[in-house]
Amino acid sequence: MHKLLARWEDLCGAAPAARFIDILLRGTGQVMFQNHPLTGLLFLAAIAWGALASGVPEVALGGLLGLLASTLTAMWLRVGAEGLRAGLHGYNGLLVGLALPTFLAPTPLLWGFIALGAAVAAVATLATANVAKTWGVAALTAPFVLVTWLLLMAAFAFDGLGSGALPFSSDIAAIDPAAAQPLRLVDFAIGVLKSVSQVFLKDSNWAALLLLAGLAVSSLPAALFGLGGAVLAVVFAHLLGAESDVVTAGLFGFSPVLTAIALGTVFHTPGPRVALYAALGTLFTVVVQGAMNVALAPFGVPTLTAPFVLVSWLFLLPRQQFEPSGDKPS
Amino acid sequence: MHKLLARWEDLCGAAPAARFIDILLRGTGQVMFQNHPLTGLLFLAAIAWGALASGVPEVALGGLLGLLASTLTAMWLRVGAEGLRAGLHGYNGLLVGLALPTFLAPTPLLWGFIALGAAVAAVATLATANVAKTWGVAALTAPFVLVTWLLLMAAFAFDGLGSGALPFSSDIAAIDPAAAQPLRLVDFAIGVLKSVSQVFLKDSNWAALLLLAGLAVSSLPAALFGLGGAVLAVVFAHLLGAESDVVTAGLFGFSPVLTAIALGTVFHTPGPRVALYAALGTLFTVVVQGAMNVALAPFGVPTLTAPFVLVSWLFLLPRQQFEPSGDKPS
Amino acid sequence: MHKLLARWEDLCGAAPAARFIDILLRGTGQVMFQNHPLTGLLFLAAIAWGALASGVPEVALGGLLGLLASTLTAMWLRVGAEGLRAGLHGYNGLLVGLALPTFLAPTPLLWGFIALGAAVAAVATLATANVAKTWGVAALTAPFVLVTWLLLMAAFAFDGLGSGALPFSSDIAAIDPAAAQPLRLVDFAIGVLKSVSQVFLKDSNWAALLLLAGLAVSSLPAALFGLGGAVLAVVFAHLLGAESDVVTAGLFGFSPVLTAIALGTVFHTPGPRVALYAALGTLFTVVVQGAMNVALAPFGVPTLTAPFVLVSWLFLLPRQQFEPSGDKPS
Repeated sequence: MHKLLARWEDLCGAAPAARFIDILLRGTGQVMFQNHPLTGLLFLAAIAWGALASGVPEVALGGLLGLLASTLTAMWLRVGAEGLRAGLHGYNGLLVGLALPTFLAPTPLLWGFIALGAAVAAVATLATANVAKTWGVAALTAPFVLVTWLLLMAAFAFDGLGSGALPFSSDIAAIDPAAAQPLRLVDFAIGVLKSVSQVFLKDSNWAALLLLAGLAVSSLPAALFGLGGAVLAVVFAHLLGAESDVVTAGLFGFSPVLTAIALGTVFHTPGPRVALYAALGTLFTVVVQGAMNVALAPFGVPTLTAPFVLVSWLFLLPRQQFEPSGDKPS
Repeated sequence: MHKLLARWEDLCGAAPAARFIDILLRGTGQVMFQNHPLTGLLFLAAIAWGALASGVPEVALGGLLGLLASTLTAMWLRVGAEGLRAGLHGYNGLLVGLALPTFLAPTPLLWGFIALGAAVAAVATLATANVAKTWGVAALTAPFVLVTWLLLMAAFAFDGLGSGALPFSSDIAAIDPAAAQPLRLVDFAIGVLKSVSQVFLKDSNWAALLLLAGLAVSSLPAALFGLGGAVLAVVFAHLLGAESDVVTAGLFGFSPVLTAIALGTVFHTPGPRVALYAALGTLFTVVVQGAMNVALAPFGVPTLTAPFVLVSWLFLLPRQQFEPSGDKPS
Repeated sequence: MHKLLARWEDLCGAAPAARFIDILLRGTGQVMFQNHPLTGLLFLAAIAWGALASGVPEVALGGLLGLLASTLTAMWLRVGAEGLRAGLHGYNGLLVGLALPTFLAPTPLLWGFIALGAAVAAVATLATANVAKTWGVAALTAPFVLVTWLLLMAAFAFDGLGSGALPFSSDIAAIDPAAAQPLRLVDFAIGVLKSVSQVFLKDSNWAALLLLAGLAVSSLPAALFGLGGAVLAVVFAHLLGAESDVVTAGLFGFSPVLTAIALGTVFHTPGPRVALYAALGTLFTVVVQGAMNVALAPFGVPTLTAPFVLVSWLFLLPRQQFEPSGDKPS
């Protein structure tokens, strides 16, 4: 595989079109922090499979449009070559493009909304990275979350976007924890897999396997921490008494999967202390997922990956503490 | 006019009272980023006209009280002379003083509330500027928005302030985009003008013309970008299917007007690339206006100029990217 | 007393167990910014008295558990010795441990929730301090507020935690300012004392006296500013027309007490100008308490000390302005 990659890199150096495709592939891989074209290819396959299997091809098309619009906007803004080639300006746009057709009806205006949102996501990525680097942390998926929340809430205010009426809080039923049920093994396995696929807003076991394969191609620790995060999240959500159906659909696990990968393998070197720290963050992400489900109910928008962003920033900001001689806080 | 201004500046140098009036005038001009006493005079005329024409003189008086209280507080805090003379410590207090009598009944306590709010706005301006300058951006009207939101929500909690009962979300009707109607030319022109006057919370065509004249006196590009931003916002809001009445009242356009001026003329040098960037920000401000109308419904407070602040910060934070050799984001 | 303290310090230097107890005591004192073991001891007595008098011993136990879990987590994270010994890693965990049993039923899972929350509070303290020190301000109780809000909202989403159903906003009665009544002197005195005890979520006059004694032991100005802040808050809340019962229960005064101590004695040197500045901040904290009561109603969580944190940060961020030659804001 190394040889194949080397030849692909040679081709990218020679042909701008290949380089552009490489940027798009790496942009896809960056949703899970992987700067690797083959990872991106497997992730795209997972997206396509998940969308087609659910009968919503517009979701896959939206993702592609978002990836393109965001990357091209960043190029127009003349961002630095290193970040561009690593795909850091594509993943937020891709996620915007996946989320909008998932939650809104596919009207003609939707496509313009995706392009606008993905272009703004490129700007928001630069803005967030600029602020976050002050404390040595990364933008993560915060630009995706912010832009998508704004676009989805705006859809309630405008007739041209295909949202239903805003589910005002008087219409929202209280979350029913009484639906929590004993856990069966098959439900457990499905919950773990779908926790992985929901990172891309997919409800598909096969997509999950493709995503895990994509992770493993680039980083075995990332695949293991992702899987471990999903297991931990499903167990802990059941222990706390979450609704079984929601856990089995992967909806308590997708943010913890990202937290586990980020804290365990991306921003720290894996090891026993780091694993324990990542586990604490992963457990707390489950708590924050529950909290944000409640907090966002009045606004009619989903949490997206906000629990992951909040907890990861919280756990990355003091990261110098893992160095032998920690700074003292004030 | 240059000669007149030079003589006024001489007078300010000689007479502290004239200098103080100059500071108040420039503080008024800074609502739209103009450090110019004549602009401030025309803006004050617009405020007075708008308030008297609507039969709410207390709004103009509140604005003056806020401007005074904020400026005097800043002087007591011994702020730097340069910022003080440029009016940077007056505009947020002025806006607090305009907003409170617009949304609350004119009880005796209201005037104390304005003075308190404007004094805190002076503190909040220093705090926000101190944080924002870390990344080379300005405080904008964020202090006004924050302080006014807090004061308006507090009015629901206290009997002494003249708010009605809090419109709890169960009482709020869903936004009715079905009221969107075909656009007539006269409605379009009124919508554009009122988008300008609503920057000062005014619903008046004549006030809008005075404001545009005030802008032009100080900066022709600012007047053009402001007008262009209003046109873009009204067209885009209609395209998205916003309620026609609300668009024609200028309520989807006042934040975009500020975004267009800020991104196009204040913090960047005008040019084709900058104009395109400002247009993207202006369009997104319309989206954010819709989103915030929805998001703030549970709290019973208006958006004020929060959409402008949010989008302008988002679009100003990566601004180094307009330089020939952009930094690479991390 | 100085001699006693010197001997205690000698003992701490010799016996690690004594040092650990010293850290826990100072962590308790830091809730009101006092780095003093005797203050911590008196505060612990106030907590114990308040909990036993109200028949909720689990609150005192929860506080101890939170204090321990947070301090041990910080030690595991190898934080700097200076901050650790000053108790800066204990107070947020202590408050988490006091708050959770106050608002949730004492199920077995609750104790795990406290330990998890207090451990995360230690991480959040490092993260907040790391960000806040960029502008020379402290973390205050922001980590406690953030973590407790998340845990309380999560309790609505999970069956295993003993919260009632989420009080969705349609069930919330509008705040009834009509219940405001003429003030009697005894109610006034009780309101002042309970404003102090509510800092530790206690509704007890005796706890308040122990807390004031604890403050006085470490800093007489802190005790005086705390008491003065409570008086100012109770008077101002009544003047604004708050509900008398709520004021007398101390619920409009506990954040202002902290603001008065912080702005008047901790981060500035006491003096006439500083006292006036602290008074302005204290009055505004009453306003923000009213505003946040309204703002948090849709989420079913109490404000905790968020009004104190918000106003203190706002008033501390421009603090260089008290120096003879102030920076000019931009």
